Amino acid sequence: MLLTFEGIDGSGKSTQARLLVERLQAEGHRTLLVREPGGTDLSERLRTVLLDPDLRIDPMPELLLFSAARAQLVIERVQPALEEGRIVICDRFYDSTMAYQGAGRQVADAAWLRAFNQRVVQELVPDRTYLIDVDPVTAAARRSETGAPPADRMETSSDDFYTRVTDAYRALAAEESERFVRLDGARAVEAIHTRIWDDVQHLGLPTPPDRNLP
Amino acid sequence: MLLTFEGIDGSGKSTQARLLVERLQAEGHRTLLVREPGGTDLSERLRTVLLDPDLRIDPMPELLLFSAARAQLVIERVQPALEEGRIVICDRFYDSTMAYQGAGRQVADAAWLRAFNQRVVQELVPDRTYLIDVDPVTAAARRSETGAPPADRMETSSDDFYTRVTDAYRALAAEESERFVRLDGARAVEAIHTRIWDDVQHLGLPTPPDRNLP
Repeated sequence: MLLTFEGIDGSGKSTQARLLVERLQAEGHRTLLVREPGGTDLSERLRTVLLDPDLRIDPMPELLLFSAARAQLVIERVQPALEEGRIVICDRFYDSTMAYQGAGRQVADAAWLRAFNQRVVQELVPDRTYLIDVDPVTAAARRSETGAPPADRMETSSDDFYTRVTDAYRALAAEESERFVRLDGARAVEAIHTRIWDDVQHLGLPTPPDRNLP
Repeated sequence: MLLTFEGIDGSGKSTQARLLVERLQAEGHRTLLVREPGGTDLSERLRTVLLDPDLRIDPMPELLLFSAARAQLVIERVQPALEEGRIVICDRFYDSTMAYQGAGRQVADAAWLRAFNQRVVQELVPDRTYLIDVDPVTAAARRSETGAPPADRMETSSDDFYTRVTDAYRALAAEESERFVRLDGARAVEAIHTRIWDDVQHLGLPTPPDRNLP
């Protein structure tokens, strides 16, 4: 089973992914949590490249680098974990590419990008995708809460960019309403988590392995 | 004008690319010579990643990394140079992807890969491609002439791999016989260069800028 979390930077999706994994583990499930880009030696190297604010990376190479990182992650870690019966949770997956590189950077049309994404991940499709939906202004405020300057090149993108990304996420969730669950990211962390946990119960989780209870 | 050089490792194509550039410059032409992967800050970073023998890189991510390096090179250096009227010489271009990742690694079918390549380079097509054709055994002998161990992960590929790459190059040259000039890489360096120089004369080179001769 493959569950993915999506949302703009500052939406709180990483927190929700972590809470879900902790809950699943507490129930005895075997899980794998990965974040994109990252999760393999190659993908972490590419993460460093992608987040380097001093490096010129145009939209097309940016798309290809995120995709390379994802391809290696799927081959090296996600597919093996799924074959072992683990529940795999991805903090970002190919919908990020649709929203960020497709709508945000406008690097390619949606139809081509969708087919390309599927090829990159060997036709894998998430069983469920949780979109933590916050408006761009709230997300920007959360990102700047620490008072730190923008940390990397993705975060230096303009407000206009984040508006396009947000709209694209909402459109994806509407188009694929069977796969997506859209959650109001303005609600309390615990309330969002409860809603996700309720949903996960209905997905037909594998029975946890015996836990050697007395 | 865009001229590309192709061939397997050890074919002598880099030598020929350099000789052609020197000749063009001697005649007063403005040129740009680039090698793949490389030629921009991003592309050189990716070159280091791609040639790292300790890094696991599967065929699909390898394709995407070479393509990312090429996309940035085209946007940042090749297109601007062409717009300035320079003659651009590439030591490897997208035919390398057809031969190495397509036929060698068998990462995707040729039709999809060709369309993908064109998109990556913004539909650019070389005016001429010089294939320095040597058999895999000769090339392997040349690569090991220095007695050094294989330098990087591409060079550790099997003989079988190089046979597929060689066959693919020959098939490409036959399919696009208008664009390709196939040269026997077993001949002397100077003889091959003379043949290339003869051919270049017939491509309708731009008139060199005034050279302030007396």
